[in-house]
Amino acid sequence: MSSAEEIARGAKAAFEKSQLVPASERINALHVIRRELEAHKAEILAANVEDLKAAQVEVEAGKMDNAMLSRLNLDKGDKWDSMLQGISDVAALPEPTGKVSYARELDDGLELYRVSCPIGVLLVIFEARPEVVVNIATLAIKSGNAAILKGGKESNRTTLLLSKAISAGLAKTSLPSTYIQTIQTRAEVSSLLDMDRYIDLVIPRGSNSLVKNIQNNTRIPVMGHADGICSVYIDESANVDKAVRVVVDSKTDYPSACNAAETLILHESVLTTIWPKVAEALLAANVKLLCDAPSLAALQSSSVSAPASASIAPSTDADYSTEHLSLTIAVKTLPSLQAAMEWINAHSSHHTDSIVTESDEAAHIFTRGVDSAGTFVNASTRFADGFRYGFGTEVGISTGRIHARGPVGLEGLVTYKYMMKSKGAKGHIASEFGAGKKAYKHAPIEASSVPF
Amino acid sequence: MSSAEEIARGAKAAFEKSQLVPASERINALHVIRRELEAHKAEILAANVEDLKAAQVEVEAGKMDNAMLSRLNLDKGDKWDSMLQGISDVAALPEPTGKVSYARELDDGLELYRVSCPIGVLLVIFEARPEVVVNIATLAIKSGNAAILKGGKESNRTTLLLSKAISAGLAKTSLPSTYIQTIQTRAEVSSLLDMDRYIDLVIPRGSNSLVKNIQNNTRIPVMGHADGICSVYIDESANVDKAVRVVVDSKTDYPSACNAAETLILHESVLTTIWPKVAEALLAANVKLLCDAPSLAALQSSSVSAPASASIAPSTDADYSTEHLSLTIAVKTLPSLQAAMEWINAHSSHHTDSIVTESDEAAHIFTRGVDSAGTFVNASTRFADGFRYGFGTEVGISTGRIHARGPVGLEGLVTYKYMMKSKGAKGHIASEFGAGKKAYKHAPIEASSVPF
Repeated sequence: MSSAEEIARGAKAAFEKSQLVPASERINALHVIRRELEAHKAEILAANVEDLKAAQVEVEAGKMDNAMLSRLNLDKGDKWDSMLQGISDVAALPEPTGKVSYARELDDGLELYRVSCPIGVLLVIFEARPEVVVNIATLAIKSGNAAILKGGKESNRTTLLLSKAISAGLAKTSLPSTYIQTIQTRAEVSSLLDMDRYIDLVIPRGSNSLVKNIQNNTRIPVMGHADGICSVYIDESANVDKAVRVVVDSKTDYPSACNAAETLILHESVLTTIWPKVAEALLAANVKLLCDAPSLAALQSSSVSAPASASIAPSTDADYSTEHLSLTIAVKTLPSLQAAMEWINAHSSHHTDSIVTESDEAAHIFTRGVDSAGTFVNASTRFADGFRYGFGTEVGISTGRIHARGPVGLEGLVTYKYMMKSKGAKGHIASEFGAGKKAYKHAPIEASSVPF
Repeated sequence: MSSAEEIARGAKAAFEKSQLVPASERINALHVIRRELEAHKAEILAANVEDLKAAQVEVEAGKMDNAMLSRLNLDKGDKWDSMLQGISDVAALPEPTGKVSYARELDDGLELYRVSCPIGVLLVIFEARPEVVVNIATLAIKSGNAAILKGGKESNRTTLLLSKAISAGLAKTSLPSTYIQTIQTRAEVSSLLDMDRYIDLVIPRGSNSLVKNIQNNTRIPVMGHADGICSVYIDESANVDKAVRVVVDSKTDYPSACNAAETLILHESVLTTIWPKVAEALLAANVKLLCDAPSLAALQSSSVSAPASASIAPSTDADYSTEHLSLTIAVKTLPSLQAAMEWINAHSSHHTDSIVTESDEAAHIFTRGVDSAGTFVNASTRFADGFRYGFGTEVGISTGRIHARGPVGLEGLVTYKYMMKSKGAKGHIASEFGAGKKAYKHAPIEASSVPF
């Protein structure tokens, strides 16, 4: 096996060589890889059965939960077919590279173009679901990036064969063989996280602890999110039916997703009006309410009764900075919109926060004043998602502010470079410009691609 | 004096509060600050004289060079006036925030807008030139970011009064007083580099060692460049006059700039044709040539004679990864365009590289195959600059690939957020969409700003 440094160097070399391969060949590679996967379906699913058997032993020993076991299964429902369909879907998306976003004629015959291009080498680390190796390889190839992929050890047998099919596909194209590589050990990941000379972006997809650990152990930029602490704020002017619908959907539509609400903030004026109805609906949906003193008191003096004694409990400070990822919500009462925004800015993970309000002014203030990637009005936090936003596919959701923020589509996997060409008879030099000499024209050029 | 944490927290609070201040008030602040500076010109220049006197002592003791002394002087030429004019120029630039770059109707009455917004809190660290405190404060205010600024200790007296004028100006507006803060000590910088909770972007402007030190000591994203190792490659099809002009300008127009060429790469076929003429022109411009064996031999067998014996010397490996920042260039001979691109990708700092060629094919290959922020054809590397590119102003030049690459204008100081509003009678929830339910419309919306 290659050392981590050889793998990283190989990825960088593959990236550099691939820059002259036309985008059409990358799309061709995706179709070839799909056919390779189809041709090896039986072997891959047999390996997956082995992974599942080993995982079953872990589950019985109490070392793995059933949710992870279920995510491992590549033959469940239409998972295999949608993995393959995903390849074709991504292949058909608009080309993200080669797009001109700025073009100027600086002088007669001196043209400048800012053009989108791949970032370089991606290191992607994920857990459990083996099909992610195919999803990520597909996105990397489509966007022109080389990638090094590391799956969870529980899916090693499956990802090994998926990777083999990807490599076999690449070998039938003019893309370099080290364009997509897979690694198996944590030791390799640790070594790679040091190699900022070769690796340009790290994308961790998995648990909070996986992401935090990576963020704390590399100088390479990391794209993604550790926490997803989203909140819904019920404003004094909220409509009760909208409040019930938005809160229940934000919490219960898919509680283990990062865009599920973890905190409910109440304007104090809704404590005896809207809050009991929202609480009733949440309790009916089996949600556990962790309440601050005012919201607890309001329930106790209302007709709302908990279906089980444990479903309403006093909250602790820690509950407001915890991503429960389950049917649990922490409830906080505050005296004003301003206080709610300050609370959210201090406690949320800057992912997505929603206000329920009938006031256009409150909607305006909340969407500007809350410093999160998504600020919503009368809409569930669950809409924060690349597919729902219309990106066609999603690389992940970023809570960073740099480069890409919120749900990230293929655009998040490209950067840009500036290409400049002099058509002048003598070339162009800078010392001919300045006071008393030539002035820059900066005339806009209409161009969607670079003409040279 | 406040602790570093109080300063950071104050900056974040100021940023959050400022989100509801209209852009017009930020522009007003710039004009007010200009007037404050004008009103305190005499005091500020008197403090500058004190800084210059102290620096003169350092120069005489051999602890400071004359170039730094010269950069300290705020009263030199039109420096004061252009500093003030710079404020008005930035105030007049197009507003970088509030611009919609993506808008979709996800469903009837459910609208999504991606809108540019400030990043948050900037920590800017620079050396020597005191006017940078005004330049950076201006850019931060224009783009809506809070900023913490740290100048060089040699300009402390001047920057203190410049900062006071900025604070006095801010106090006359509705922007928070901790919007722009100045710190004086390295200890504060060290503490702030740990505060990724409050600080969103670090921008170091100064020497290679300053930038590297910061990159190695923070988890906060850093925008800028340590090295500026740019190269010019003379292709086999190069025109000799263009080669001479582009190489001489790239090297000599301003040798201490990051976009000056440090390496000259020769296709081996030009060793006896173009290279002697380029060498002659470089020597005539007092450039020292550090040559590999083939380029040295070619000069020795040509009629080129060095004006001084020290101006032609054999190169060492280290010369090809050194930013000389002086009239020195390292020369490398390679057998092909492909070899030149591989050399550049391995040795350059991915800043700006230029090819001199008459071949459209070579130009096409070089601009795609060289993995740098700027890839130029028959044009001097010195054009890599925000003003020259037409951005109106420049935050710096980034050799990173994430967020902003190459010369960075105000666009590099903004990110975006997603605002979503439901106008539906019942609000919008995600569980109503999916197989057998509602489908997303993703209908484009024409909008340059958010309508709510």
